[in-house]
Amino acid sequence: MVDIATRVYNHKWKIDPIVRSLIDTDFYKLLMCQSVFRNKPDTNVTFSLINRSTHIPLADLIDEGELREQLDHIRTLSLSRGESTWLRGNMFYGKRQMFRSDFMEWFEQLRLPAYHLERRNDQYELTFEGSWPEAMLWEIPALSVLMELRSRAVLKGMGRFELQVLYARAMTKVWEKVERLRDVDSLKIADFGTRRRHSFLWQDWCVQAMLEGLGDSFVGTSNCLIAMHREVEAIGTNAHELPMVYSALADSDEELAQAPYQVLADWQDEHDGNLQVILPDTYGTEGFLNDAPEWLNQWTGIRIDSGDPATGAEIVINWWKSRGEDPREKLVIFSDGLDVEKILELNTQFEGRVKIAFGWGTLLTNDFRGLVPNDALAPFSLVCKAISANGRPTVKLSDNPNKAMGPADEIARYKRVFGVGEQEAVEVVV
Amino acid sequence: MVDIATRVYNHKWKIDPIVRSLIDTDFYKLLMCQSVFRNKPDTNVTFSLINRSTHIPLADLIDEGELREQLDHIRTLSLSRGESTWLRGNMFYGKRQMFRSDFMEWFEQLRLPAYHLERRNDQYELTFEGSWPEAMLWEIPALSVLMELRSRAVLKGMGRFELQVLYARAMTKVWEKVERLRDVDSLKIADFGTRRRHSFLWQDWCVQAMLEGLGDSFVGTSNCLIAMHREVEAIGTNAHELPMVYSALADSDEELAQAPYQVLADWQDEHDGNLQVILPDTYGTEGFLNDAPEWLNQWTGIRIDSGDPATGAEIVINWWKSRGEDPREKLVIFSDGLDVEKILELNTQFEGRVKIAFGWGTLLTNDFRGLVPNDALAPFSLVCKAISANGRPTVKLSDNPNKAMGPADEIARYKRVFGVGEQEAVEVVV
Repeated sequence: MVDIATRVYNHKWKIDPIVRSLIDTDFYKLLMCQSVFRNKPDTNVTFSLINRSTHIPLADLIDEGELREQLDHIRTLSLSRGESTWLRGNMFYGKRQMFRSDFMEWFEQLRLPAYHLERRNDQYELTFEGSWPEAMLWEIPALSVLMELRSRAVLKGMGRFELQVLYARAMTKVWEKVERLRDVDSLKIADFGTRRRHSFLWQDWCVQAMLEGLGDSFVGTSNCLIAMHREVEAIGTNAHELPMVYSALADSDEELAQAPYQVLADWQDEHDGNLQVILPDTYGTEGFLNDAPEWLNQWTGIRIDSGDPATGAEIVINWWKSRGEDPREKLVIFSDGLDVEKILELNTQFEGRVKIAFGWGTLLTNDFRGLVPNDALAPFSLVCKAISANGRPTVKLSDNPNKAMGPADEIARYKRVFGVGEQEAVEVVV
Repeated sequence: MVDIATRVYNHKWKIDPIVRSLIDTDFYKLLMCQSVFRNKPDTNVTFSLINRSTHIPLADLIDEGELREQLDHIRTLSLSRGESTWLRGNMFYGKRQMFRSDFMEWFEQLRLPAYHLERRNDQYELTFEGSWPEAMLWEIPALSVLMELRSRAVLKGMGRFELQVLYARAMTKVWEKVERLRDVDSLKIADFGTRRRHSFLWQDWCVQAMLEGLGDSFVGTSNCLIAMHREVEAIGTNAHELPMVYSALADSDEELAQAPYQVLADWQDEHDGNLQVILPDTYGTEGFLNDAPEWLNQWTGIRIDSGDPATGAEIVINWWKSRGEDPREKLVIFSDGLDVEKILELNTQFEGRVKIAFGWGTLLTNDFRGLVPNDALAPFSLVCKAISANGRPTVKLSDNPNKAMGPADEIARYKRVFGVGEQEAVEVVV
């Protein structure tokens, strides 16, 4: 029996919106947003789309009108009553009322600020300017809209059964990964795949597959909307944008050198336990750890998000030891470019030496490699970053020179201030 | 939005019926039924289930109560008004009113006769006795019920995502076959997979995949219900049961020797064109053709359903030549144990020498080989045959001694009467 009402309701949509909720975003964006709302609410920040995969001609693939429709739709969104209730009432990382009332009242009123979109040859220039807590919430929806519009562009020409078989193959691929991972009892894996997902429905499917297939090894998803719907943990801590903006705001080299620690000092005013996770690579992991204040020794864990992950883990284990900490009590989170092989390899290598968790992103929620001609659905490296704060450019170095960003002279200054020497280049796939 | 009415309606079913229509059967059963209804309506025939794959313990796998529920449900079925309209009004093989009014009036009143079911160790004894036109209509639904109950038994223990991925893999498998076949323009393929299908919905999916994927190369399905729903051709001609029962009824060796030709003499009173297809192998192809009356030279085609298919095709081509016929004007239908490799191989071998069509059965609609542990969903060789007529046993020899059936002394007699010598044994997979 056809559900007539549903069909008629669906036909009323002018477009098929990709992002339908302000909490269809990563949990850590909301945590960081609350932190920024408290500590730096008046900072003016510009976020910008950066397509690191320049061989993907986004502006040829995606119609500008369709992109505008999707972005305009996101600007109509506001927090729903149920979403607000969930954020206010749910337990996150074992804690109730993670989000304070003043933040929630602000969030309930929020509409995302204007965007600036312009075609530049075969790419789009897409920027978001505004107060930091507002502009920052564009990052994830902007990326997921672009990724899904690109998927739709490729899928447009396919027949009904071709499509069904495409998804059949993709499902098989994900499930085969789940089956390989399910045999390892000790694993702890979360979905970190919102920003570069194939589509919303596909990410939702992947989360459910992990939920059924991995049992306790699946610890949750970074996506708040999916966490709410599927009743799983919302996962995430903090990201590079905090030290990048804090650093851009520094008025001297001395202040700059302290900025990344100031971020974490502000953070520990609000968070403890498994939310005290250091992201040390913004300006080079080794320098960051060597100069770290004593109070960081007590933090729970470190997230490794660039460079060779095994090397990074050895560095942080040695650092903990040098600070008199027992690494077996500490948590290492791997979150950069993971797939099954790498997850299993890292787990074997570090099991028993440190607690381990994996934030599995693009190659969980967008592994359509090899499924269509010319690999037209293969994921690619698209990011949306804070590029300036109060008119000053931001800089990111990371542990991989291929991920560095910012003006050349500022990069040179940051390298000097943070004592970054030679770095090993690692190819950035996703 | 949940369609409440549909959910409530579905909950009202006591069981999930496998066969829901009397025309969820092979088209040739209805053609033959009409022929039998006209020529031999009062013959008493017993059909019996025969599991040629004795390593599959059907009675252990399938609950007797569930089997009875399904068979009882089939006995409640009668031709619906729409089904009757379709049979009466649709064009079959280019002809309107294929089914005569007297037959349709009888069919509209029909309920299937009683069945006899008994467990014998790990197998079921399942027989259907009654007037030939009634009992014969049990063959296909009985087989598809047993095949699908066996599928369900295996699927019962699987999780929701395991199931989704199982079907994803199976769909991928079918689609990869379709993709291999679509490149060959000259192919003509029909679905013959009703009796040993994985399930009704799966057969329906396979037909739609062929429809989208193969275009003009897909000529139709043997399944009447699916042909009606999907608006494709219903395909099929005649089967071994006609010569088997005619032969059992013969009162002397002389009559026996003529029985297979009498079947076709009766057939050509009703059918011409592409329905004049000889099935020559019931008692050995070579003897049948050598002794065939002149009027069979004009028939349109020959279906090859046992033995090595290429050998069979060479034999019939030579026979046509020896009778002064041009094989390029004749049709060879291959229908035994086909899969993609064999289809492509036979098409290459005989293209241009004869018209070719393929009736693709079990390995289209039930190729779940390799998809679950212990290959528990692999298809197997289950048949339902007329074993006696008016109290006399039937015999089938075919071109493969592994497919022979009947009492040993009768097999010996038939071999003598039809002059069958040494035969090459071919493994029966499905």
